[in-house]
Amino acid sequence: MSAVAGVPPTLRFEDDELYLLDQRLLPHKQEYLQISNAQELHQAIVQLSVRGAPAIGVAAGYGMARCLRDTPADQMLSAARDLGDYIKSARPTAVNLAWAVDRQLEALRADCSYAQLKHVGAAIHAEDVAMCNAIGEHGAELIEPGARLLTHCNAGALATSHTGTATAPMYWAHARGVQFSVYADETRPLYQGARLTAWELSNAGIEVTLICDNNAASLMAAGQIDLVIVGTDRVVANGDVVNKVGTLNLAVLCRHFGVPFYVACPMSTFDPGTPTGAEVEIEQRHAAEVLGDHGAQVNVHNASFDVTPASLVTGIITNQGLAKAPLEQTLRALHAQNEAAPD
Amino acid sequence: MSAVAGVPPTLRFEDDELYLLDQRLLPHKQEYLQISNAQELHQAIVQLSVRGAPAIGVAAGYGMARCLRDTPADQMLSAARDLGDYIKSARPTAVNLAWAVDRQLEALRADCSYAQLKHVGAAIHAEDVAMCNAIGEHGAELIEPGARLLTHCNAGALATSHTGTATAPMYWAHARGVQFSVYADETRPLYQGARLTAWELSNAGIEVTLICDNNAASLMAAGQIDLVIVGTDRVVANGDVVNKVGTLNLAVLCRHFGVPFYVACPMSTFDPGTPTGAEVEIEQRHAAEVLGDHGAQVNVHNASFDVTPASLVTGIITNQGLAKAPLEQTLRALHAQNEAAPD
Repeated sequence: MSAVAGVPPTLRFEDDELYLLDQRLLPHKQEYLQISNAQELHQAIVQLSVRGAPAIGVAAGYGMARCLRDTPADQMLSAARDLGDYIKSARPTAVNLAWAVDRQLEALRADCSYAQLKHVGAAIHAEDVAMCNAIGEHGAELIEPGARLLTHCNAGALATSHTGTATAPMYWAHARGVQFSVYADETRPLYQGARLTAWELSNAGIEVTLICDNNAASLMAAGQIDLVIVGTDRVVANGDVVNKVGTLNLAVLCRHFGVPFYVACPMSTFDPGTPTGAEVEIEQRHAAEVLGDHGAQVNVHNASFDVTPASLVTGIITNQGLAKAPLEQTLRALHAQNEAAPD
Repeated sequence: MSAVAGVPPTLRFEDDELYLLDQRLLPHKQEYLQISNAQELHQAIVQLSVRGAPAIGVAAGYGMARCLRDTPADQMLSAARDLGDYIKSARPTAVNLAWAVDRQLEALRADCSYAQLKHVGAAIHAEDVAMCNAIGEHGAELIEPGARLLTHCNAGALATSHTGTATAPMYWAHARGVQFSVYADETRPLYQGARLTAWELSNAGIEVTLICDNNAASLMAAGQIDLVIVGTDRVVANGDVVNKVGTLNLAVLCRHFGVPFYVACPMSTFDPGTPTGAEVEIEQRHAAEVLGDHGAQVNVHNASFDVTPASLVTGIITNQGLAKAPLEQTLRALHAQNEAAPD
């Protein structure tokens, strides 16, 4: 059932019930949360049981269907609007969340039924699978034999419903027998790299080495990183990239040390309505994530994302092809192409 | 007794016994290890009960005295050589360790006695106190009212026997009523910033905010960092700076975002015999420090230090004054001045 051998699927919609892999427990336990109402869906997103912009989008699509399953047709549109607003507030930065919600609302206007919500949920899911495959194919050409990659956070199979965004080219190249290795940033404060990326790549048989985020610079200085690929939660009109905090550090290091810096994401992660990264609301998370049990009780600044300016991005690997500089123009062209494509 | 109110002294040599603050337990517990033999001293250094290059130097000076206290005079020099080799192996990167050991060996050649070892131990300690004060005075002028500083790891009071290296200018400015604030990098993998720096600055009444190392770039991009001051374990002849891993990341970010990058250290941290940073052995530490209990069993790269090239360093705040570019020449001049100074 899983897209990557050894890695459990991030979600299942079976017999009109939604199950989300509880990623907080990985890799120690593989348990699924059954989602039956808006509160459970909101909580699962806030607490990062489901995380990764594409996976959140698929979960929101199915989640809207499940939560409105038993709502009478004449109340469905109004209930869907309230539900959508509530779910969107769970993670303001991930654009796929709002995108999936708005798509369900749009579909309800044409056919206000549970069948329609299920249909759209399944369509978002199918598109996510196709998106991963297309990103994998477009990005795999960047991975030369012997290449040493670096990635940050988890833009992996676990962040989507299939083979991931940043990892899709890796799984694609691996399946074709290309030998390469990957350094995984542990990704403080929530260790998505240590808990998720290192685990899923290793399970899939890809050579992976875990590092503290602080080790990236000295590895690049020693010429041991050939290519960086990260995911993203949102790419705005001018090509600025919003992603897990620490991504900007890597992009600056790549510029300094001459390492190509690539971002992988589906077209659904583009937000052409926001001109630059400066306009994106950056989620501040709890101090406890940083304070841990170290014992010092001090102020904490815990911005969960940062903005990498388009000028530091070598290219964006999308499901419709590789976008290179000047990003604003190439992204606009890809977006127009996407809008023109049949649904 | 402590140099900074609220911060316990890192070591005490009292009644011919050596006590080291066990920094592994901070800030939860303030306990001292009694050091009675070479194994205990070696362990205390390896396990980071005592850490920070200057503090290790003072501990090694007193430690040599304590370990050889009961050794007959005719066996003392040979025993001191064996002991010195053994202790030096505990942390190959910190140059103050070898410096203190060699200074004891040199002194024994003139007067082979326990009294001489005690005398030299106390002299190293007194010089450490004077060094902190001088660095504080020279560096304080860099801290303008309202300045927002960033520091990495702990080059604080706890890393010396007095007011620290990177922190000495902060304590000096604070004592003179200058209002400023400090961001403390938590400093993975061992969290010296979260456990030690945030704690000691906060105890001393300085406004401090703890961040994950990943947050430094976005703070700089937002213009919220005016000055970086870090410590160092070794500065080599050309001015390359060896310090806790992550320092090079910060230095590259400073260059990119136009933030001054300063290093604070005593002249005893200079290693004029090593031409460049490329020749310094970088300590690799245990995988367990990074793997933690996250559950993924993968390869780990855990280099504990990195090398910041002199070209990225704005200046070095030493106990003999501020060394600015070109570092190789200014450091050579300061070193010559140091050698010529009365002991």
